[in-house]
Amino acid sequence: MRPLSKRDANFGTSIIREMFSLLKDPNTISFAGGEPAVELYPMEKFQEASAKALEEFGRTCLAYSATEGVDLLRDIIAKERMKAVGVTCTKDNIAVTNGSQQGIEFTAKMFIDEGDVIICEGPTYLASINAFNSYMGKTVQVPIDENGMIMEELEKALEAYPSAKFIYTIPDFQNPSGVCMSLERRKKLVEIAEKHDILVLEDNPYIELRFAGEKLPAVKSFDTKGYVVYLGSFSKIAVPGARIGWICADEKMIEAYGKIKQASDLQPNTITQYQLIKFMQLNDMDAHIESLAPFYKEKGERMLAAIEREFPEGTQYTKSQGGLFTWVTLPKHINASELFKQAVNNAVAFVPGQPFFAEPGNENYMRISYSKATLEQIDEGIARLGKLIKEYK
Amino acid sequence: MRPLSKRDANFGTSIIREMFSLLKDPNTISFAGGEPAVELYPMEKFQEASAKALEEFGRTCLAYSATEGVDLLRDIIAKERMKAVGVTCTKDNIAVTNGSQQGIEFTAKMFIDEGDVIICEGPTYLASINAFNSYMGKTVQVPIDENGMIMEELEKALEAYPSAKFIYTIPDFQNPSGVCMSLERRKKLVEIAEKHDILVLEDNPYIELRFAGEKLPAVKSFDTKGYVVYLGSFSKIAVPGARIGWICADEKMIEAYGKIKQASDLQPNTITQYQLIKFMQLNDMDAHIESLAPFYKEKGERMLAAIEREFPEGTQYTKSQGGLFTWVTLPKHINASELFKQAVNNAVAFVPGQPFFAEPGNENYMRISYSKATLEQIDEGIARLGKLIKEYK
Repeated sequence: MRPLSKRDANFGTSIIREMFSLLKDPNTISFAGGEPAVELYPMEKFQEASAKALEEFGRTCLAYSATEGVDLLRDIIAKERMKAVGVTCTKDNIAVTNGSQQGIEFTAKMFIDEGDVIICEGPTYLASINAFNSYMGKTVQVPIDENGMIMEELEKALEAYPSAKFIYTIPDFQNPSGVCMSLERRKKLVEIAEKHDILVLEDNPYIELRFAGEKLPAVKSFDTKGYVVYLGSFSKIAVPGARIGWICADEKMIEAYGKIKQASDLQPNTITQYQLIKFMQLNDMDAHIESLAPFYKEKGERMLAAIEREFPEGTQYTKSQGGLFTWVTLPKHINASELFKQAVNNAVAFVPGQPFFAEPGNENYMRISYSKATLEQIDEGIARLGKLIKEYK
Repeated sequence: MRPLSKRDANFGTSIIREMFSLLKDPNTISFAGGEPAVELYPMEKFQEASAKALEEFGRTCLAYSATEGVDLLRDIIAKERMKAVGVTCTKDNIAVTNGSQQGIEFTAKMFIDEGDVIICEGPTYLASINAFNSYMGKTVQVPIDENGMIMEELEKALEAYPSAKFIYTIPDFQNPSGVCMSLERRKKLVEIAEKHDILVLEDNPYIELRFAGEKLPAVKSFDTKGYVVYLGSFSKIAVPGARIGWICADEKMIEAYGKIKQASDLQPNTITQYQLIKFMQLNDMDAHIESLAPFYKEKGERMLAAIEREFPEGTQYTKSQGGLFTWVTLPKHINASELFKQAVNNAVAFVPGQPFFAEPGNENYMRISYSKATLEQIDEGIARLGKLIKEYK
C-alpha cells in the first residue's frame, strides 16, 4: 500500500486508552475517567425534551441543516451560556461543533503547517497535544502555578518562538491540573495577545462547574478586538454523549470554521441539536448547572481531605474549587506510570501525568478525578493509593 | 493575526452554497438539493425508536462511548447493511463516522501530504474535492462513460502519477452523474488496485437506492486483500440529520481511523447511535429501503421523460436507474452557470456542473435531482429549463 501522510506518524495512540485496557476488575475504584457523574445526567428531562422536540419540530429534526448549526441553538448558546461566562455576543458569533474537541481540531487545521509552534500550558489536555501533532505542529508548554499559566513565562515563550501560531489555554479548572487562571492574568493574556498579534484559543468546558470560590469571567469577555476564540461544550454540564460543543468567535472566524466544517463532516447532528434546544426551552439550564455544584463540592472536598490525610509529606495537590480533577505532584523518585500498574493490582485507578506533557521527564504526576467514585470509594481508594505511595521504592 | 496554514488557502467556499443564497423565491421549483425526499423519512417509526432507546438503554445513551462506535450498531451495520451490498465482515471491520463525508476527510488526513495526487472520477462529488484540497492534495480526474470510470483511463492516470495516494470512486448512482460502474469494471478496479498496490476509497451512499436494472455488489465485495475501504451512510436511506455513516475496512485500517477520530472529535454521537440501533431492532430496514424504490422510480422516470420531451437536440443525459440525480450534458456553447442565473429568475433551480470538476472548462453540465419536486413540478420545471436552453444565446 502507498505510504501514509507524513503527519500520520504523529498520531499518538492514546496512552490512556491503552492503560484503560488494563482495568479488567469490575471492582476497581476508578479516579481515572474525565467524564461527569452518570447520576447527574438530566435523564427524565432529556427524555421529555427529546419526545417533544421530535413532535414539535418534526421532520426538520431528521433533515440536513446548516453547517454552523441550527439558528435556535446558536441563539440560546449566545444569550444564555455565553452570557453566563460574561461574554456578550449574538448567534452569528456561534458555530456548533462535535464537542469542543472539534474546535481544537479545526483551529489546528486552520493554522498549523509542519513545524509550527503552539504555546499552551504545561501540563495540558492530552487530546489537544494529539490534535496539534496530527498537523505536525510543535507543542511548547509554559509552566503554571496555582493561578494558571505564568504570564512572564508566556512572554518568554513568545519571544523564543516569534512565529508561534496561537496560544491554547484552559483557564478554568484546567484539565489536568484543576487550577484556574486568576482575573489579573486573564486580562494580561488578552493584552499579550494584542501586543503580539496572536490568537488565544480558550478551551473552557468546565467553567460553569464551580463549587467554591469566586466566579471568574471567561478570557473572551476581555476581548474587544477578536483575538480570542472560545470553545464551550454541553459535555460536562449536561450530556457528554450528545457531542455538542460550540465555537464563539468573530463572524469572520465563524465563516472560516464553516468552510472547514463543510469539508470535514458537513454539519452537526440535527436531531441532537433539537433535543438540546427543547431541553433548554423546557428547563432552566442555569438552575440545572447550579444543582450540580453541591454534588461535586461534597466529592471534591472529601477527596482533598482524604489526600491530605493519606498521602505522605512531600506530595502536593491542587485545592480544586470546581471541575472534575485534582492534580498530585509526587516526590521526584516516584514514577506515576509504575505506580499506576501497582494501583491497578490493588483495584484502584488514576491517570499518570506524563501524557499531559509534550516532552518526556514528567513522571511524578497523577490526575485524580472525584466525579464518579462514591464517598466511601474515595476514602478507600485514596487510602490504598496513599499506602502504595508511602511504600514506593 | 498570525498567518493561517498554507492549506487554508485551499479551502474553497462552496459554490453551491453561494448559489443557493440566490434562491429567495419560495415558489422556486428546485432540482438542486442532494437530499432524500422529506416525506420518505420514517418519522413515526423514528419517534418510537427514539423513545424506546432512551427508555431501554437509559443513561448509556447520554454517556461517552467508544471512538469506533457502539458495538451493537457496528454489529448491525456489518450483518445487515454490508451484507446487503455483498460484503461479508464483522463489527471489527466497522467504524462509525459523522456521515460518509467524515470518512473522506479522515482518508485525506491519513494519506495526503502537500502535492499528493488523488485519482477520482471526472466529474465527482464536489465536497470530496474540497476535502482533498484541504490537505493540499491534487485531484486528478479520470473520464467516465455510462459504465462509470473508464479503466483504461485509470491505468493511464496511474502511470502518469505513479505516487498517487489512493483512488476515490462512487460506483453506484454517482454524484453527480448518476451512472453505475459495471460489474466487470468493479472486478477490474480491484485487480488494478492490487497490481498497483494502491487503496480504493469506495464512497457508496446511494447503492441501496436502486429502482431499476440489476443490483450490483459493492467493489469491496471483490476485495480479498484489504485494498478497498468502503464508506456507507444512513443519510440517503433513512435520516440525513443523524450524521451517521460508517467505514468498512480491514481491522488495521479501522484502528488507524480510530486514532484520527480521537484527535478530531473523540467519538460519534451516542444518543443517535442508540436511536438508530433501536430503529433497526424494531423495524425491517431492508423493507424500509425497498419501500423507497417506487417513489424514486416514479419521479425519476417522470423526469427522464420530461427531459426527453423538453430539452433540445444535442443535449444528453444519464438514464438513471437509482439514486437522486440525472446529469445533463448541454451543447458546448451553453454555460450552465449563466443558465442557472436565468433559471433562478424563472423560478427553477439546478446545480451547474463545473464545481464537480477539479479543473475549469467544464461549463456545459447540469446536475438535476428528482428527489424533492412533485410530479407536476417536474413537468413544469423541466419545461421552463427546456425553454431557457432552447433560447440560450
